[in-house]
Amino acid sequence: MNKALSVNSLLSINDLNINDLNLIYKTATYFKEIINRPIKKVPTLRDITIANLFFENSTRTKISFELAEKRLSSDIINFSAQYSSLNKGESLIDTVNNILAMKVDIIVLRHPSPGAAFFLSKNINSIIINAGDGSHEHPTQALLDSFSLMEKFGDLKNKNIAIVGDILHSRVALSNIYVLKKMGVNIRVCGPKTLIPRNIESLGVDISYDLIDTLKWCDAVNMLRVQNERMNLKFFPSNREYSQMYGLNNDVMKKLNNEIIILHPGPINRGVEISSEIADSDQAIILDQVENGVAIRMAVIYLLAKNIKIKNAD
Amino acid sequence: MNKALSVNSLLSINDLNINDLNLIYKTATYFKEIINRPIKKVPTLRDITIANLFFENSTRTKISFELAEKRLSSDIINFSAQYSSLNKGESLIDTVNNILAMKVDIIVLRHPSPGAAFFLSKNINSIIINAGDGSHEHPTQALLDSFSLMEKFGDLKNKNIAIVGDILHSRVALSNIYVLKKMGVNIRVCGPKTLIPRNIESLGVDISYDLIDTLKWCDAVNMLRVQNERMNLKFFPSNREYSQMYGLNNDVMKKLNNEIIILHPGPINRGVEISSEIADSDQAIILDQVENGVAIRMAVIYLLAKNIKIKNAD
Amino acid sequence: MNKALSVNSLLSINDLNINDLNLIYKTATYFKEIINRPIKKVPTLRDITIANLFFENSTRTKISFELAEKRLSSDIINFSAQYSSLNKGESLIDTVNNILAMKVDIIVLRHPSPGAAFFLSKNINSIIINAGDGSHEHPTQALLDSFSLMEKFGDLKNKNIAIVGDILHSRVALSNIYVLKKMGVNIRVCGPKTLIPRNIESLGVDISYDLIDTLKWCDAVNMLRVQNERMNLKFFPSNREYSQMYGLNNDVMKKLNNEIIILHPGPINRGVEISSEIADSDQAIILDQVENGVAIRMAVIYLLAKNIKIKNAD
Repeated sequence: MNKALSVNSLLSINDLNINDLNLIYKTATYFKEIINRPIKKVPTLRDITIANLFFENSTRTKISFELAEKRLSSDIINFSAQYSSLNKGESLIDTVNNILAMKVDIIVLRHPSPGAAFFLSKNINSIIINAGDGSHEHPTQALLDSFSLMEKFGDLKNKNIAIVGDILHSRVALSNIYVLKKMGVNIRVCGPKTLIPRNIESLGVDISYDLIDTLKWCDAVNMLRVQNERMNLKFFPSNREYSQMYGLNNDVMKKLNNEIIILHPGPINRGVEISSEIADSDQAIILDQVENGVAIRMAVIYLLAKNIKIKNAD
Repeated sequence: MNKALSVNSLLSINDLNINDLNLIYKTATYFKEIINRPIKKVPTLRDITIANLFFENSTRTKISFELAEKRLSSDIINFSAQYSSLNKGESLIDTVNNILAMKVDIIVLRHPSPGAAFFLSKNINSIIINAGDGSHEHPTQALLDSFSLMEKFGDLKNKNIAIVGDILHSRVALSNIYVLKKMGVNIRVCGPKTLIPRNIESLGVDISYDLIDTLKWCDAVNMLRVQNERMNLKFFPSNREYSQMYGLNNDVMKKLNNEIIILHPGPINRGVEISSEIADSDQAIILDQVENGVAIRMAVIYLLAKNIKIKNAD
Repeated sequence: MNKALSVNSLLSINDLNINDLNLIYKTATYFKEIINRPIKKVPTLRDITIANLFFENSTRTKISFELAEKRLSSDIINFSAQYSSLNKGESLIDTVNNILAMKVDIIVLRHPSPGAAFFLSKNINSIIINAGDGSHEHPTQALLDSFSLMEKFGDLKNKNIAIVGDILHSRVALSNIYVLKKMGVNIRVCGPKTLIPRNIESLGVDISYDLIDTLKWCDAVNMLRVQNERMNLKFFPSNREYSQMYGLNNDVMKKLNNEIIILHPGPINRGVEISSEIADSDQAIILDQVENGVAIRMAVIYLLAKNIKIKNAD
């Protein structure tokens, strides 16, 4: 196994090859062990400065990155802004170039515009980690989801994984499809017609509009969040009707003969896409996902920072 | 003296026994000496991660906790949100469980709902410090107030302490009553009838509506803040009338023969509950309270964190 | 050269003598080399706590100070507030005295009111660094601007420097004039009549209303930002007309025979006061200014903190 990533930034899951994925998972396994020790830190990145640029609200992703950075002992600059306030004058490129001129090594970027991280990478010279760009991608989420599945199943080849809910607006869905395809997974997306993008089959996934059928077929299901805040129009009549058609609860589970693993990217709308009994059951690995998120982000940051260290040593 | 606290969290002053109080005061005395040295830090909690969850605005309490945590060398995650924005989707328990899954050891919680810290402690498995829960309790404030009084008086047994102002909405008043009763203090509350809760006598305190009488009786007075922001209704006609009846100023002081010590939990409304001459006089120990706040919070955090370390060592 | 500053706080450039300036530049040269090493930190101020009090929005100055403080290994407390919300109850002096009671050593103050830092210094006992007080002064900006010019020119004596744009509202302009006069620079201010303060000649500067003339005369020009957010009234008809009269672009540059150095305090309004080709050209030292900002702030903080250390050692 090659010991360095083939990329200098993490913009999209699609840029990673199988060797990159395996290297990230292996490194995350090591860091997961570290964060479960009494002393949860390593001094590895003491000489690295990371700027977390969040142009969109995010609690859990921000805290997860921040903790990952602290566990690696890096210096951290936090910058949160609504995109609109930035628009007053300065361009994104100027903002980032200014921060880089202050000797920041890595940019973690969360931005409402699809492609923002990619755009930035074409215009500046720095390591960039895409922490979510609009409805486009959320690569570290897909890495932590697939890592969590591997903890349960080992090799994912030929496993059946379903993604249920708002496929249309979900960067989690897209990044998950990309990573799981690379690992040989059979993927089915399921949800109301209005929330399944046209031509999604071209990504090599099946479509179903029936939750029970989908759950009977799968080994694990990723229950997406109903993102009311991202929907300008109504894509379904009400949360109540959504829940009756696509919500996971005890009534639904009783109709299945198979044991399935349940993922959710959080935050949970209890009683909408998932009921409390199911969210808190042993089948749900939602909090494992959160824990693995820190380990995965430590791994990504560590592996990308290695490139700087190699450059500095030259 | 027992060297460990009898509690795993600090939710209410009522949960602490006399041994706990003495242990906290003794530890705070040690830390107060530390923060007055040129090097104001100890490496003690390098392996502890603390999340400050502030669901309500607070400048001084937040900074005091943050500095206490930094002086102990712990890692810190700050999370500030209005409760309303959280309400959009995720429950408090889910938010906290997510943060705990990221390997956070201690939760410092400020919340507008009375009982929030207690509620959390029944539903999650972590060390919780109540940094103010609505109009209910503010235990570290009561600890720093009583510690500041002990610096002046030594043993507080049979001292006369008055609490003046908005007893009804004040978590400071309630927590102070609890801690001072445990130490054998005679307590009198004083304020407009509309701001004295019914049945407050059941806590073992006297009531007075007359400021001068109260001040003549007491050794020290805790002048509560007029919390205009917490009052939905008008409980008194105007700040000016409040000040004339219950404000502490030179005119009032001239009517007394006794020397009294003056406390205020801050922030001060100069000219309302206390005049500038009095706030800045030698009798006022307001800035000592602030300094002691850091030492008390260091002590509480240190003593609660000890439990983790003992667990880890097993 | 004296090795200590003649001042205890940095309130105004006018308080600094030539020895102070040289000491700051020399120290900044040393720190600039540090922040360009792989390991960009020094443990020098491990025992110093700094509070960044920003009562006005600021991204770049805040991040620059914060990074300077982190590179020096000091402990940091960040406090951001709109001035209005503070007005609800507590005075600026009380807020700062509270923070100082928690054993903070240095206050970095950004405030919308001209004279806020000076006012504070008369009423509290602490080291204060003025990080911008309304339209009055921004001393660290002037220090980094002059330091950046010295990197290009060496000694600045008898150099011709122009400052173009909104001289009236600009704390950058005023602080730059103060520092450059001390170094024997010939200064010309240039802009629309409505944005040149009356009696500015009394500071020993020339006035011009003609951009081309001014640029032909100067060795370097500091292009001020059009601060739409500071102007209650319209001082010029539109950004487009401003740009035609006082904007720096390729058409303007073609009319010059001399090579000039171009500064800008940022954030840039591309296409208003400066065009993209010019902002990104080799003549522009805008990102050098940003980099030097961290080194200058490290120098100022380090030199002021020395006074505490000397006091502590006594």
